Amino acid sequence: LHSKLPEVGTTIFSIMSALAAEKKAVNLGQGFPDFECDPALTGAVSAAMAAAHNQYPPMPGVPMLRERIAAKIASIYGHSYDAASEITITAGATQGIMTILLSCVHAGDEVIVIEPAYDSYVPSIQLAGGVPVFVSMELNQHGYTIPWDKVAASIRSKTRLIMLNSPHNPTGFVLSAADVKALADIVRGTQVLIASDEVYEHMVYDGVRHESLCRHPELGERSFIISSFGKTYHVTGWKVGYVAAPAALMAEFRKVHQFNVFTVNTPMQVGIAEYMNDPAPYLNLPAFYQRKRDLFRDGLKNSRFRMLPSAGTYFQCVDYTAISDLPELEFAQWLTAEVGVAAIPVSAFYKQQKESGIVRFCFAKQDATLQKAIACLQKI
Amino acid sequence: LHSKLPEVGTTIFSIMSALAAEKKAVNLGQGFPDFECDPALTGAVSAAMAAAHNQYPPMPGVPMLRERIAAKIASIYGHSYDAASEITITAGATQGIMTILLSCVHAGDEVIVIEPAYDSYVPSIQLAGGVPVFVSMELNQHGYTIPWDKVAASIRSKTRLIMLNSPHNPTGFVLSAADVKALADIVRGTQVLIASDEVYEHMVYDGVRHESLCRHPELGERSFIISSFGKTYHVTGWKVGYVAAPAALMAEFRKVHQFNVFTVNTPMQVGIAEYMNDPAPYLNLPAFYQRKRDLFRDGLKNSRFRMLPSAGTYFQCVDYTAISDLPELEFAQWLTAEVGVAAIPVSAFYKQQKESGIVRFCFAKQDATLQKAIACLQKI
Ligand SMILES: CSCCC(=O)C(=O)O
Ligand SMILES: CSCCC(=O)C(=O)O
Repeated sequence: LHSKLPEVGTTIFSIMSALAAEKKAVNLGQGFPDFECDPALTGAVSAAMAAAHNQYPPMPGVPMLRERIAAKIASIYGHSYDAASEITITAGATQGIMTILLSCVHAGDEVIVIEPAYDSYVPSIQLAGGVPVFVSMELNQHGYTIPWDKVAASIRSKTRLIMLNSPHNPTGFVLSAADVKALADIVRGTQVLIASDEVYEHMVYDGVRHESLCRHPELGERSFIISSFGKTYHVTGWKVGYVAAPAALMAEFRKVHQFNVFTVNTPMQVGIAEYMNDPAPYLNLPAFYQRKRDLFRDGLKNSRFRMLPSAGTYFQCVDYTAISDLPELEFAQWLTAEVGVAAIPVSAFYKQQKESGIVRFCFAKQDATLQKAIACLQKI
Repeated sequence: LHSKLPEVGTTIFSIMSALAAEKKAVNLGQGFPDFECDPALTGAVSAAMAAAHNQYPPMPGVPMLRERIAAKIASIYGHSYDAASEITITAGATQGIMTILLSCVHAGDEVIVIEPAYDSYVPSIQLAGGVPVFVSMELNQHGYTIPWDKVAASIRSKTRLIMLNSPHNPTGFVLSAADVKALADIVRGTQVLIASDEVYEHMVYDGVRHESLCRHPELGERSFIISSFGKTYHVTGWKVGYVAAPAALMAEFRKVHQFNVFTVNTPMQVGIAEYMNDPAPYLNLPAFYQRKRDLFRDGLKNSRFRMLPSAGTYFQCVDYTAISDLPELEFAQWLTAEVGVAAIPVSAFYKQQKESGIVRFCFAKQDATLQKAIACLQKI
């Protein structure tokens, strides 16, 4: 069989989780919480099943859930999406991303990818028949930045779409208002669309504001916004997310969505809709995770790791070049096997070979888990 | 925006369900049960959530669920799939079908589609870059048959895959051992793969045996088998299914799957795995649905509809040419609005215009619902 994705192997997340299990290491690799979600949320799903919400929902999703998402977006970001025609529930953010690309990218179209990038972007672009065009983030003493001049220089007549991600996995970088303005200036007058992966939208720290692209009228007009309840509600295994976009874009998205998954688990949608009635769980998320971030950072303050900024997401990147000159994958494997803490090599987020001596830790963990990891990491 | 699927509109299932709701008609259109699933099943999902099964499962699915599927297939069809490398849980059968096509079909490859065909097949082939090649089923006094000589004549060097579906939606046709032999003779010595949509595998009547392609050693070697818990367990809204295939094919499938949805709802998988421990629910399904089929057929015996055979699925096709010479869509709309029973025009399962004067009813309904529909339909 002639492979469609000859370069793809097992994802780094599965590899490191398996190694962590084998070595009984503290798993700060794959991004998922090791604590439980709110029992009110699982209770709402059980109630939905008991109330006979077990057959097909409407193709774009349960109406009440779409309405609550629209209300949330309006109240936080000040943009009104029409729940009927501009929001679709997806089987996780990943399915939303694949579906956007399948619906917009024609054979030979170019898609700009900012590296480091989440590992699904490039294969999804390729499966849609597109060609990824890479722009690398730049790293200086203050952390990662996006070189907008290089993004501008990458736009050509074949450019169909820019893949963005903020808060950014793995770096913790968060788009500023100045970044958004730079982006708007670049795409103005072009036909370029934007897919904005905002799954960590509720995890921003130190008072930083999440610049959802829907806040910006011009950019909102050409953007698909992607989010995920798995991240927001501590249920990564539920695989429920959504995509919001202007009606004309959403109409094309839905044509593909209906033949990709048709629709998404009904009782989960109904339960989440019920639970969303209370905004406190997502409004409290920045404080909840900032405390964990600070606990983890403070714990490593006197270690030999150099801490990079983490303005958002539940990830903390560290520079280990004072400890080792191993390549990142080998260092992450050594850290897992010998030190007892699993991490993700940031090199796994680049298609071209790229070694910066940086690994990513996930701090979406119980305090006790973080403390155990800190104790191991301080010994190095 | 230049559409990837310019011909696609709203699915016929959504259209007819909406019209049924508007006209307060009995909805025998879209295929879903109007009765509840076993409370033991929803209880098992609630227990899984309570037992903290809410984070990412392994990418190919919860191991226990894959093992139980392998055991079921071995016990019913006598074929041993390796649960670790040959079975993957999907977000419904539709996602399995899209993922098979994305993983096997290269730009310009041809895929043979037997019409009438489920409406996702052709757009999914097109999104994968493939070209559908149609073969029409033939309809005589004894019902529908597949003209294997025409299938054989359609195979060329560019043929990558044949899309099959048995028990067949919408016709109720079930592949016989002779059909399977004809297929095996046709593909022997070629590189042609098969995607076998067997979501109605447990709905076969009058002692007919479901010829899963995995029963046939030669065909099993080149086939993806698709099934769906939504159909089998009366939970169409749960969107959990699976694909089974030899390891080499499954490896390519998983490369795409991990970037399409990554994985499928954990507590649903754990709950279904628990529930699958008892084979009675699927073993009892033929008798359960045969009784409903017979209730519906007997009820229409003295009507002006001519009943076609229904050897499998939960669908009954009827010829209405003694009643009306309206095209199928108009007849289905008239039936919904004026007679009070929604049906699906079989013409919706053809890409080329095709009018046979046949509509499809779904009999996965409470007896009272079927009786109400019969009372309306007998008045015509
Ligand atoms: C799909 S598993 C990976 C989870 C995640 O988003 C991450 O660890 O970056
Ligand atoms: C995806 S909604 C359609 C359900 C179904 O399989 C059918 O009615 O044919």
